[in-house]
Amino acid sequence: MSSSNVISPDSSTAFARLCEAHPALVGIERAVDVIPGMRRDLILHAGPPIDWNRMASAMRAAICGGLVFEGLAGTIEEAETLAASGKIEFAPAHDHAAAGAMAGVITASMPVFVAEEKNSGLRAHVSVNEGLGKALRFGANGPDVLERLRWIRDDFFPLMQRALEISGPINLKQAIAEALRRGDEVHNRNKSATSQFFRDIAPAFVATHAPYDQIEKALRFIGGNDHFFLSLSIAHAKAVSLYVEQCGVGDLVTVMAGNGVEVGIRVASLGNQWFTGPANVADVKFFDGHGAEEATPTMGDSYITESIGLGAFALAAAPAISAFIGGTVDQLIARSERMREITMGEHTEFRIPALGYKGVPSGIDVRKVVSSGISPLINTGIASRIPGVGQIGAGMQEVPMACFTAALSALDARA
Amino acid sequence: MSSSNVISPDSSTAFARLCEAHPALVGIERAVDVIPGMRRDLILHAGPPIDWNRMASAMRAAICGGLVFEGLAGTIEEAETLAASGKIEFAPAHDHAAAGAMAGVITASMPVFVAEEKNSGLRAHVSVNEGLGKALRFGANGPDVLERLRWIRDDFFPLMQRALEISGPINLKQAIAEALRRGDEVHNRNKSATSQFFRDIAPAFVATHAPYDQIEKALRFIGGNDHFFLSLSIAHAKAVSLYVEQCGVGDLVTVMAGNGVEVGIRVASLGNQWFTGPANVADVKFFDGHGAEEATPTMGDSYITESIGLGAFALAAAPAISAFIGGTVDQLIARSERMREITMGEHTEFRIPALGYKGVPSGIDVRKVVSSGISPLINTGIASRIPGVGQIGAGMQEVPMACFTAALSALDARA
Repeated sequence: MSSSNVISPDSSTAFARLCEAHPALVGIERAVDVIPGMRRDLILHAGPPIDWNRMASAMRAAICGGLVFEGLAGTIEEAETLAASGKIEFAPAHDHAAAGAMAGVITASMPVFVAEEKNSGLRAHVSVNEGLGKALRFGANGPDVLERLRWIRDDFFPLMQRALEISGPINLKQAIAEALRRGDEVHNRNKSATSQFFRDIAPAFVATHAPYDQIEKALRFIGGNDHFFLSLSIAHAKAVSLYVEQCGVGDLVTVMAGNGVEVGIRVASLGNQWFTGPANVADVKFFDGHGAEEATPTMGDSYITESIGLGAFALAAAPAISAFIGGTVDQLIARSERMREITMGEHTEFRIPALGYKGVPSGIDVRKVVSSGISPLINTGIASRIPGVGQIGAGMQEVPMACFTAALSALDARA
Repeated sequence: MSSSNVISPDSSTAFARLCEAHPALVGIERAVDVIPGMRRDLILHAGPPIDWNRMASAMRAAICGGLVFEGLAGTIEEAETLAASGKIEFAPAHDHAAAGAMAGVITASMPVFVAEEKNSGLRAHVSVNEGLGKALRFGANGPDVLERLRWIRDDFFPLMQRALEISGPINLKQAIAEALRRGDEVHNRNKSATSQFFRDIAPAFVATHAPYDQIEKALRFIGGNDHFFLSLSIAHAKAVSLYVEQCGVGDLVTVMAGNGVEVGIRVASLGNQWFTGPANVADVKFFDGHGAEEATPTMGDSYITESIGLGAFALAAAPAISAFIGGTVDQLIARSERMREITMGEHTEFRIPALGYKGVPSGIDVRKVVSSGISPLINTGIASRIPGVGQIGAGMQEVPMACFTAALSALDARA
């Protein structure tokens, strides 16, 4: 038996943690109040570390929007000057127990959902999903985008905070297990998870006794965005990942993320080290009027959902996603099911009814990826390179093999 | 080619109507104000016509509860005397453009959802789902059951009415098509449809500016019942059925319903005639502590959902229902897919992603049922024979072949 088929006791330990991790949504707080190391002059971004001058245009645009939003710059032009001045620090959200979709920009005063893993008390922090189209996470930074971010911070946040106090913790593990029974893969398709979350939280919004129009607007904001739950799915997966990383052993991938220039992964036994490869543009489904030449390469922290066995790993649970990301249902499921060749096993609680309740393939094993030559798949949204445009497509792509060969070298060097 | 494989032009006309029918939820009204022929001394029930003295115990118990609810009797005992006196008329809900789950009892002051078919303006009327367990539709008639019915009438109804005025019509055809993409078969599994309906209507409840506690209670009532949407699925299917019946031609089944003693069907070209066979107890999954000896035979109007291709005909859309009704996923889907042998074709808009977007088998052809010997399947809930107990199981069963042979005789006699 080759080494790639032997699962080490350490990796089994890490995989057991992945399955037993149990995150709940416990609140929403200002980033600066809860994210470790957060400061006003620190901006978190998606993917592995990257300097301002190497960043993708969509990420730079999102950061400039964030600087104006924070009042650190008066205009987008001033923000560009400030960002390049060295007075602002940039760091991966993943290095601060946080994560963000697409550009993944989190600034000090943004509210972030807090997911707590209940065995460990470890907490993950993720910003509120703004909706599709023109949104900061896609690099849009116009007045309407900033105005919505201010509304989220000044009006939505306190109301959501009181609603969550009234509702008490929301069991995210159970919510995701149920969403898999309702046609979501809980990365690019969150329709059912969003509807159920809405159903769980709406009575608590009413119980805040806030002015009717404020409650109604907040509910319409959540209900109007089929991807609202994505923030919570990311927060859940990041909390799982923190719990796996805490054990400090095993060859399991704990993070996959892109910054639009490079894709990076992390491994359970290798701490916060990033192993990177070049980001690329996938063969995805572009919205009408857009194409690959306009696309930002792989960007975002939301691939943390694939890291635990959801998203592209769970497409058999979500056949209707084919309308959004392209391909036939059979093709999508066949590609997704190949992930069983590079994973440690079936997740014990995330199951797919259509496969006779088989668990999703979970626990990406660095050694299996390299020996099989099969890269993990990720579902992704595509941001335009042109600042202000927003999302221009969605689809499935592969994480660069270079990430895994680099990680394997580090594992072997240590052995 | 045998006659059973030839689809007549008349049947094609009826089937086209089945697919093009387009019901929307347009409101909620008191039964006596909108149901044709409704009076205070008329009680509607599920299934084909039946006299009081032949009724199943669960239906009698539900009727007695209804008489007390209407103030026509002071106690259940008085209600039994009144019901047997000849002073109260009983009629199938289906004969009054209405339908009800299980016992299907509708009395004059009960609020009913109104679904309007938009090509014709035809309207169907269905009472509000009370929740699982002890409920009037299962023959429970204790003080708690009647108290909840009063709350539904006196508090929930006016609030829901205002909310629907604010929201405007809700497209039920689209809601059901989407629910099939979210793991519901929209008869015994309505979790996703209920969540989405909740998401659609909750902001309108807030916009009524009714007292907060009333809104919160109403939302918790809807949100607390995974089967809430069943009423709307029945209303949708009944409106479709009315539109098919209006064309007056074809060998398509338009109604299948049971009263706990007999099961009856109706056929597009044969108007309001019922063709019946004996109701029986299916091999279903009983809740702990209950068994077949306690079960009421086939009862309810909700099989109108199977009549248009949902429920047991659409199990491939809802593999997770196996946990509720028993059987393996593969077995359930194989049984469901056999319905293609007795139907006119695929529904043009109700599609199943997991089958590569194939339409559900739809338009039950009386001639195909008889020539193939395959009876239509129905998903069902099981009411206890013991008044007050409520639901004791759920599962799948067959409609008696006698209904179809009787209908075929009538079709042939007319030809």
